[in-house]
Amino acid sequence: MESFILHPTLAADCHVLGRWRELRLLLHRDAHVRWFILVPESAAGEWHELPVPLRDQLLTASSMLGTMLKNDEGCDKVNIAAIGNMVPQFHFHVIGRWKTDPYWPGVVWGRSVPDQIYEIGEVRRLKARTLACLPVCKGG
Amino acid sequence: MESFILHPTLAADCHVLGRWRELRLLLHRDAHVRWFILVPESAAGEWHELPVPLRDQLLTASSMLGTMLKNDEGCDKVNIAAIGNMVPQFHFHVIGRWKTDPYWPGVVWGRSVPDQIYEIGEVRRLKARTLACLPVCKGG
Repeated sequence: MESFILHPTLAADCHVLGRWRELRLLLHRDAHVRWFILVPESAAGEWHELPVPLRDQLLTASSMLGTMLKNDEGCDKVNIAAIGNMVPQFHFHVIGRWKTDPYWPGVVWGRSVPDQIYEIGEVRRLKARTLACLPVCKGG
Repeated sequence: MESFILHPTLAADCHVLGRWRELRLLLHRDAHVRWFILVPESAAGEWHELPVPLRDQLLTASSMLGTMLKNDEGCDKVNIAAIGNMVPQFHFHVIGRWKTDPYWPGVVWGRSVPDQIYEIGEVRRLKARTLACLPVCKGG
């Protein structure tokens, strides 16, 4: 969708890592956790309203990210969610959690304190890692 | 899975509505929101570890419940999530939210105050509604 515009709140809260198929790949600025946000290029507001091809892309990407978070980033748990009570543009959270992160065992929403942000090199590393993972893994 | 045992925390927090294919259908006791929990009969702990047939059942059921929550229960938003930081048995939340509910626009996790519970007739109504919706809708 050429005319797709990312919601300004998502654009402000996140680093834009890139695009995979019809998904925008974002990394939340809060570096206490590994917080990816996937945004399908769609006007749908709910999970059950997403067109099936986009939902399938979301499933593939979220599964691959979840595997990467556990296997490569050493996360203890992966939290996934679509909430959208405050930002109406549909977006899907894939969050790698550690038992040592400051929000554990609670959720991150409403509690995130962005007093730990990424250095630019770390954003580049995660961008490369994410984009490299997806094409290899999508047919798996 | 005949030997599948529901985690005691889920059993304590929820009404058991029934079973659909290999999913247990639960209703959280907090009646401020319409909070369904779907539990696949699986030992998987993460979204990306679920066997594909179970993940497909979860997709179908969560989509049908989401549609029902918006169309029949008049919910303003549907929140979906798999968190599992405290209860390791994989479970998937499908929560109908109203802009007038006491947690809006925040999330329910960590904030639920079960001072409004269901009357038995309301549990029966939601059980019938849920179970009737799923078989009709699953091939859709």
